[in-house]
Amino acid sequence: MMINYWEDLQRIRSKRPLIHHLMNYVVMNDAANVTLAVGASPIMAHAREEVEELAAKADALYINIGTLDDRWIESFLLAGKAANKNNVPVLLDPVGAGATRLRTETVLRILNEVEVSVLKGNGGEMMTLAGVVGMIKGVDSLGEANLEIAERLAREYGVTAVITGPRDYVSDGKRGAIVSNGTPMLQYITGSGCMVGSVIASFMAINKDLLIASVEGLVTFEIAAEKAEKKSSGPASLKVNLIDELYNMKSSDYELAKIEFKE
Amino acid sequence: MMINYWEDLQRIRSKRPLIHHLMNYVVMNDAANVTLAVGASPIMAHAREEVEELAAKADALYINIGTLDDRWIESFLLAGKAANKNNVPVLLDPVGAGATRLRTETVLRILNEVEVSVLKGNGGEMMTLAGVVGMIKGVDSLGEANLEIAERLAREYGVTAVITGPRDYVSDGKRGAIVSNGTPMLQYITGSGCMVGSVIASFMAINKDLLIASVEGLVTFEIAAEKAEKKSSGPASLKVNLIDELYNMKSSDYELAKIEFKE
Amino acid sequence: MMINYWEDLQRIRSKRPLIHHLMNYVVMNDAANVTLAVGASPIMAHAREEVEELAAKADALYINIGTLDDRWIESFLLAGKAANKNNVPVLLDPVGAGATRLRTETVLRILNEVEVSVLKGNGGEMMTLAGVVGMIKGVDSLGEANLEIAERLAREYGVTAVITGPRDYVSDGKRGAIVSNGTPMLQYITGSGCMVGSVIASFMAINKDLLIASVEGLVTFEIAAEKAEKKSSGPASLKVNLIDELYNMKSSDYELAKIEFKE
Repeated sequence: MMINYWEDLQRIRSKRPLIHHLMNYVVMNDAANVTLAVGASPIMAHAREEVEELAAKADALYINIGTLDDRWIESFLLAGKAANKNNVPVLLDPVGAGATRLRTETVLRILNEVEVSVLKGNGGEMMTLAGVVGMIKGVDSLGEANLEIAERLAREYGVTAVITGPRDYVSDGKRGAIVSNGTPMLQYITGSGCMVGSVIASFMAINKDLLIASVEGLVTFEIAAEKAEKKSSGPASLKVNLIDELYNMKSSDYELAKIEFKE
Repeated sequence: MMINYWEDLQRIRSKRPLIHHLMNYVVMNDAANVTLAVGASPIMAHAREEVEELAAKADALYINIGTLDDRWIESFLLAGKAANKNNVPVLLDPVGAGATRLRTETVLRILNEVEVSVLKGNGGEMMTLAGVVGMIKGVDSLGEANLEIAERLAREYGVTAVITGPRDYVSDGKRGAIVSNGTPMLQYITGSGCMVGSVIASFMAINKDLLIASVEGLVTFEIAAEKAEKKSSGPASLKVNLIDELYNMKSSDYELAKIEFKE
Repeated sequence: MMINYWEDLQRIRSKRPLIHHLMNYVVMNDAANVTLAVGASPIMAHAREEVEELAAKADALYINIGTLDDRWIESFLLAGKAANKNNVPVLLDPVGAGATRLRTETVLRILNEVEVSVLKGNGGEMMTLAGVVGMIKGVDSLGEANLEIAERLAREYGVTAVITGPRDYVSDGKRGAIVSNGTPMLQYITGSGCMVGSVIASFMAINKDLLIASVEGLVTFEIAAEKAEKKSSGPASLKVNLIDELYNMKSSDYELAKIEFKE
């Protein structure tokens, strides 16, 4: 498959696409800063009185259910439907699916009522949604999945499925990709998976090929993390350096990408 | 005009004025840390059951509508009116005015029902409120305004108007000032404008001359940013270093101030 | 008293206990990162539809009332009672008790309806709850308390009481401890007291002796702060370095502990 990585990143930086986030409280600040660092323009807004208006004019909508409640759930659906009506691509992050009934049901409801473009979660969440495992413990990952599970999710829900972990599995139901960049220390940064979502959404805003956009988002974030780790002495300095590296990303960095395509 | 910068900063540090924030979720943490670094005491509280009580005993009230919803709007008004009744100065940050109907209407409603002391926004927001431009895209700035627009806003709404940007325009309707400190990289830190608001509010708490207090807040934040940028490799380290520099601000730093007064 | 500090920290790291936080918006991100750095697994969730389910399977529940409103108060009570039913230890942080009627009443209501294991607050909050002082100004500390006040609180409310400050006073009503680690610069980091709570809750999840668990949490956080300060130039770099140090904590660090037991 053909990836015009550098051209795509440059397009984000020059077009500054608007990424409407319905993002959990924990990661709102980091996700906004990651989105800015990659070159896009974040807006965090969740009021039912305005989400339709914003989603309609956004270049991508990112629904992250991390700190959901009944009011946010209403806004997820309103924003998602408004995005659909206006052909705005939608990324759904099913944070904690499997951890509580509310979360699993909310994700299924969104998948049912909204046309989701990319469904991105960690192993535990995605295996729950694929029916591979039952209830899980927290919001942290349960370990690795595989490409077959991504493919099953892609077909079942009509999405591009992205399963993050030590290796990331991406499938649009026909084509598949495995990304092996990143560093284990990312697990010690809360919401590192949510932040990846902001980067993928930024690429979705300028690249209609959702499998490629997902891979571009993953490698961008994870290569920045690899470079950042060399300068860091723990997870907090890693986060600071990672955002700096995203901001400083240059074309040669793409040489570090570890992508395996399966067609 | 006469600025007793160092004396004023020292008064913040010794009096530790209480700055009641109704601050958006994205920037709450940074705004609190900025307020502490400058020497004041932040409290972030938004429940309608307590905002009047807190605003009444605060030394300044900072209303930032960034992540508004119907419940927060109710609290903005309750807190603002309680501040007015107790002669507590009010700073209003009209985040995203022009981006959605809800935001523009909420700002106009607050300006109508609450006596706002300082109205501080970026070019796009302030030009929307001045009727210069129509609807805008996101919450990021639209570029530069000018002193005339600040003056018009000051007169129309009976406020001290602060338009932030590469150059900041401040007007109380009679006197004007242009501040040219800062660095472009601040645009890559989410909520840098919101954080400036915390610093201005801290000066408003100890200086009744709102034009001077606004200028003091702007130069404090922006000089710290200039010093921080020299040690930083991107926006995330810039934020860390900026807060450290605010904490370490000393009297000689004021020599870096670039202020042009217009009377 | 006998502290198996290193064994206990290792148990957190290997068991990765789930710490359910009802944490204020300001400190959610930092508290989650602190919890991860110490080796435990945080979940931040507040919806009344899921808090009982999560609290029931958590290894500790941390209720922090920092940015309370009526909906959060309902969730505090639901989560607390579910934790009680399932023998999950509960940490309560009475942020701003004494600053508004809503806060004081909410804390007393939780103490009345929920069996709280550890009650942890700063001097002002805890002296308010002990009836030593009346209304206070903000959410910042009012200075030092003493072991007698901790003991009184422990007996009155049937809790282990932890009063944080330059010296921390811990009492379970019979035994007492004074911890003198830390650095004054912590006062310039918003929510440093809230973050200590996350570390104490992590130890509560693996150590049933609540006095010891509290002391372990305090020294862990404060020794990390002491080590971090040496590398820091202000409060923002202190926060980054502190989280890194928590992640890198090793057995010899415990030699820095300054604990005085009173039996």
